[in-house]
Amino acid sequence: MNLGRITGQVRIVGAGLLGASIGLGLRAKGVDVIVHDASRSTVNLAIDYGAGRAPLDDDTPTLVIVAVPPDVTAEVVARELAAWPRATVADVASVKVGVLDELIAAGVDLDRYVGSHPLAGRERGGASAARADLFIGRPWVVGRGEPFRRRAVEDVVIELGAIPVAMSAAEHDNAVALISHVPQVVASLLAHRLAGASDAAVALAGQGLRDTTRIASSAPELWVQILGANSGPVAQILRELQAELGVAIDALETPDAPGARRAIAELLAGGNTGVARIPGKHGTSRHFSQLVVMVDDKPGELARLLTEIGEAQVNMEDLRLEHSPGAQFGLAEISVLPEKEALLISELEARGWKIAETFA
Amino acid sequence: MNLGRITGQVRIVGAGLLGASIGLGLRAKGVDVIVHDASRSTVNLAIDYGAGRAPLDDDTPTLVIVAVPPDVTAEVVARELAAWPRATVADVASVKVGVLDELIAAGVDLDRYVGSHPLAGRERGGASAARADLFIGRPWVVGRGEPFRRRAVEDVVIELGAIPVAMSAAEHDNAVALISHVPQVVASLLAHRLAGASDAAVALAGQGLRDTTRIASSAPELWVQILGANSGPVAQILRELQAELGVAIDALETPDAPGARRAIAELLAGGNTGVARIPGKHGTSRHFSQLVVMVDDKPGELARLLTEIGEAQVNMEDLRLEHSPGAQFGLAEISVLPEKEALLISELEARGWKIAETFA
Repeated sequence: MNLGRITGQVRIVGAGLLGASIGLGLRAKGVDVIVHDASRSTVNLAIDYGAGRAPLDDDTPTLVIVAVPPDVTAEVVARELAAWPRATVADVASVKVGVLDELIAAGVDLDRYVGSHPLAGRERGGASAARADLFIGRPWVVGRGEPFRRRAVEDVVIELGAIPVAMSAAEHDNAVALISHVPQVVASLLAHRLAGASDAAVALAGQGLRDTTRIASSAPELWVQILGANSGPVAQILRELQAELGVAIDALETPDAPGARRAIAELLAGGNTGVARIPGKHGTSRHFSQLVVMVDDKPGELARLLTEIGEAQVNMEDLRLEHSPGAQFGLAEISVLPEKEALLISELEARGWKIAETFA
Repeated sequence: MNLGRITGQVRIVGAGLLGASIGLGLRAKGVDVIVHDASRSTVNLAIDYGAGRAPLDDDTPTLVIVAVPPDVTAEVVARELAAWPRATVADVASVKVGVLDELIAAGVDLDRYVGSHPLAGRERGGASAARADLFIGRPWVVGRGEPFRRRAVEDVVIELGAIPVAMSAAEHDNAVALISHVPQVVASLLAHRLAGASDAAVALAGQGLRDTTRIASSAPELWVQILGANSGPVAQILRELQAELGVAIDALETPDAPGARRAIAELLAGGNTGVARIPGKHGTSRHFSQLVVMVDDKPGELARLLTEIGEAQVNMEDLRLEHSPGAQFGLAEISVLPEKEALLISELEARGWKIAETFA
């Protein structure tokens, strides 16, 4: 891993979630960060919180990071390339082909341009959610460019704790269409079905509905731009989904027809296959065992459980809490290496913890 | 809340996830539970784990709970109604109209039948996931029936910690189509798009993709039955979704056409509206504040954090962990009452915890 030190000033244009987070992260590493935004109040807020300093007349940034919405990214990149004739100018827009095409069409010399995109962020966007550690462990795609200019961008990526991934603009856009943009459209379509539902129906909602619709709370203004900029790849994947949806509906409308049950089974098996492609939470396909421990809803109980897991010399790989509205306790789902499960169960039971009843 | 004591024997037919969990829960309340299953080894396992006892020749159950797959539920209900001429016979199948229609078509006297359905369970089904507390705080729909027989079923629901909800069979099936069955189909369709993806593309996966496809790991065998039994309501909702998907694809294929951007914005806004209908995790629309604390990946650190939150006299309403593959620490997202947020931040920072940088 190259822990190259970033020399020179880094100028960030756009103090929203990404720009401000980049600023916070780089300042924490001692970099001289300049923050600019079209909105004076936005830049003042970013500066107040430590994302960088205001621009000065004698600034000489070696790297400019353009973190503005996709619709205006190419325009701002072009402007910054012209304003700083020796600087590398990178963007972080979530679509890459559109930005590149706009720049090429405008006849901009792209020698000093590097397209990039950090795969980070949360549904709650905007500057109020900015964090220095937003990028840690996340992939950050770095696109075409002069090798030493790409290296300058990769240095920033690594300083922010992210993992540089090289991809062409087209490969990138197809990939994010699949793993981000299409899921957004699908979640929104699914969630919209609830709009006219009775209170009684939505009161039956469980974790499955919550999970499949969580990202439907995304902000329309940003996503209209993202989907508009990546419309080709997104539409292509949605067409494939549309075709399979049609097959599913036909089977459901004539469930006793020959082959109908099989079509539904194949739909579900196809989902099994696809979801298994997603890397495990720890970045591998490793599977952990889970045990569910009942935790009284008293102060300190969960802390005691975690302490005793540590005393049992078992590493807790993951923890998920389930609450039951109105219950006097919660359920802690502990993930451990499979070979440690039996040990942990016996250690915890010996200390009086109630492991939820399970069969072998 | 009626904490009516269950008198008499309860016979459970079907020792899978639901049946075994009901047995475990009722045994924990001192009920004499009889367990029957077509598979001798399944029933022996259930009995070994404490879900009940084996049937005896002189059994006189007052309540029979049929917990077999949807395809055979009506047949087993009819058999049990005939075998126990005074018992109330309830089922717990996840579709109600189909079961009722089958019973009516078979000319079965339904005076002693009560349809019901607990909205509980996890993707990992089967007896190995049975838990006495599976139903706590969950809604449990109780359908038509003689009032005192409905009351007998509601007594069980309440003893198991669940919340009885009265609904007709048709209202139930429409509701579960919307909040459970359609999401299952959609998650499977979406996940299937990943089957042929490159490793590089899926390596970019984030929480959004994981959430929208989690339930795509559901078991096909069970879901073919569920979807087959509720195919009408599911198909109807999918038709509505299909229509809106078509509008979205058209807009994306001609993103610069008049009205295309607006159509995409309306899709996203519709998703916002729908997802806001889902009750909050604690059963209300209450919102909590979140703060994100960095937790070194050393043993005992998370336990220490929870202990110190308790010492700060702040109740932790929820906890979510985020891991970063390859990072030396994780992020703990703590939910607290908004009025406690500032206090907790200052208390934790005074104890050396690093709160992720945020804007107000």
